Amino acid sequence: MTLPDNTAELPHADKHVKVVGAGLLGASVGIALMGQGIDVWLTDASPTAEALACDLGAGRHLSDAGDMTPDLVVVAVPPDVTAGIVARELTLHPAATVTDVASVKGHIRVALDATVEAGKLSATDLARYVGSHPMAGREKSGPIAARADLFAGRPWVICTTPQTAGADHDRIVELARRVGAAPVELDADEHDSAVARVSHVPQIMATLTASRLNDVPVESVALAGQGLRDVTRIAASDAALWTQILSANADRVREVLTEVRGELDTVIGALSGADGSLGVLAGTIVAGNDGQARIPGKHGAPPTNYATVTVLVGDSPGMLGRLFTDMGEAGINLEDLQLEHANGQQYGLAEVSVVPAERGPLIEELRARGWNVPE
Amino acid sequence: MTLPDNTAELPHADKHVKVVGAGLLGASVGIALMGQGIDVWLTDASPTAEALACDLGAGRHLSDAGDMTPDLVVVAVPPDVTAGIVARELTLHPAATVTDVASVKGHIRVALDATVEAGKLSATDLARYVGSHPMAGREKSGPIAARADLFAGRPWVICTTPQTAGADHDRIVELARRVGAAPVELDADEHDSAVARVSHVPQIMATLTASRLNDVPVESVALAGQGLRDVTRIAASDAALWTQILSANADRVREVLTEVRGELDTVIGALSGADGSLGVLAGTIVAGNDGQARIPGKHGAPPTNYATVTVLVGDSPGMLGRLFTDMGEAGINLEDLQLEHANGQQYGLAEVSVVPAERGPLIEELRARGWNVPE
Repeated sequence: MTLPDNTAELPHADKHVKVVGAGLLGASVGIALMGQGIDVWLTDASPTAEALACDLGAGRHLSDAGDMTPDLVVVAVPPDVTAGIVARELTLHPAATVTDVASVKGHIRVALDATVEAGKLSATDLARYVGSHPMAGREKSGPIAARADLFAGRPWVICTTPQTAGADHDRIVELARRVGAAPVELDADEHDSAVARVSHVPQIMATLTASRLNDVPVESVALAGQGLRDVTRIAASDAALWTQILSANADRVREVLTEVRGELDTVIGALSGADGSLGVLAGTIVAGNDGQARIPGKHGAPPTNYATVTVLVGDSPGMLGRLFTDMGEAGINLEDLQLEHANGQQYGLAEVSVVPAERGPLIEELRARGWNVPE
Repeated sequence: MTLPDNTAELPHADKHVKVVGAGLLGASVGIALMGQGIDVWLTDASPTAEALACDLGAGRHLSDAGDMTPDLVVVAVPPDVTAGIVARELTLHPAATVTDVASVKGHIRVALDATVEAGKLSATDLARYVGSHPMAGREKSGPIAARADLFAGRPWVICTTPQTAGADHDRIVELARRVGAAPVELDADEHDSAVARVSHVPQIMATLTASRLNDVPVESVALAGQGLRDVTRIAASDAALWTQILSANADRVREVLTEVRGELDTVIGALSGADGSLGVLAGTIVAGNDGQARIPGKHGAPPTNYATVTVLVGDSPGMLGRLFTDMGEAGINLEDLQLEHANGQQYGLAEVSVVPAERGPLIEELRARGWNVPE
């Protein structure tokens, strides 16, 4: 099985791509492009990270590149040094398109404009910079976490300006498509406002929820269920990176957090039991229902309500294989799966999501094949 | 495949169980007990819910029970009417143990004590009440969402008092074990403090995060990734039920939310960029890392770091079956699985978690069998 070929119509086919920064994103870009026969030249301030990324197939050492002239430079360094490196690369490579992958765009644009005003970068050079942000990441970081498919199916935000030339824009669209992402055009402000809501504030909310578990007896934490696990999963994210992201998008994040504080005050007030407090609590939960329902489903499709079927499976090798083989033979297409293991018991539950019309037939089919499918 | 027989040593084998309330929890208890040959007699204020639950095998209509004397009464009604129904059942059935499954325990105890003080319930009768709380639930509600295995492997909190007789206590332990749950002894205060942190406050945090998506363009919400989906999943929960739960545990929830507000103010302050603000942000994220790491893993075991292997799979019936069959044949035991579908593309990623020692062999084995396993 291979990635679908969505690169056939791509116009440029850059021969040489320089990637500055061999972390999760830089190395993942490198691996994806190398897999398509594109020359990737990699450099990182950390020789260890650079060597590891090269070993993983993310590119070759830039120091071995001789007089190679890059068509495209991808800057994938921490947010707080991104603008400086972008300016340096624009000057170093006067014919290259330069992009970055930092998760906040406005502050980089501001810093680059200031560099032009200070006379340290020409406005002509700056026009070759196209900021971008692939909406992909993991709780893990570094080249070791990189993967060719990190960007597969994810939005890749492209921030052009009135100064951006068509060729530079197209080159970034091509980059996004080559790594399997879906290009999305937003300006830097729109982007920063959006990610404050869909990424940065959720991160803080997960963090603050998880922090509440620090000073309580382990017996209390042991009552945790899947809800808590889901809410706090991203609280495991890297502190150094998130400190930079949050401070880079400080104004937008503060704005949304101020909304949160307002609602939190309302909830706290309602919990002191004044008149009308039940209505306030109910309204709060309903507003959350509405917001949650706006999140798109998989394949970028509108949210879909799938029907679920729960199957009891033994916690031994092969049981899930048998289950999915049986589902496949029944012609059922799995939309999603949640596995849950039982505390201290050697079996678990597989909650299988299918389109509603397939639920009944699936239950019948699985029972006929001997599976324990409680109603 | 059947539920493991963990009932062999159970002492009482109650013949008649009365379940008051045919919602998700009551109907799930009924289905699980009926499956073990225990007579369950069901009643609900809604004739439709009662009939549906009976159809689903959760019990028989109480009105058909004749002069049946229950050994055990399970009160599974909304939190705001639980205490009243418990008092009624204690009086109606002078030999029965009475329990409830409401998710807040202190306020029920307070209400029952007040009923005794008002002379409407005898202290002797009250001694037969043992509050309990199965830590199980779904975003869905009603008998239609019930399942025999809802409680499998979940903690079932039992709140005894100095007045509780051994036989009443043992009967609830037996109930918990029969439905596959793990009994946990906590007093009502400990319980309510714990659930405020591991359940009620996470619910509000998910809700407030999801609410932030209501007034923004759909293009912004489209940037959502798995992180946002996880943080907000439980924001889809039932508003009427949660309004009751939150108001029933108002003091504890308010206490924890006040901690959250304090930290939120700290974060908002740090985002205005005063001296030391980066340290504050980093400290906040690290505290979240620590709290998240305290959440136990599956099988009730201490948190374990599993190694993950990502496999590209086609989005067609049978592909996952083939994958798991191959894993089974390779003798690999799956610890967890996350499926992720790519936007607008007909393939997806399966992130398979295994114990770290099995990661290398699994990758080799899958590649040997033709799977696309990016490094």
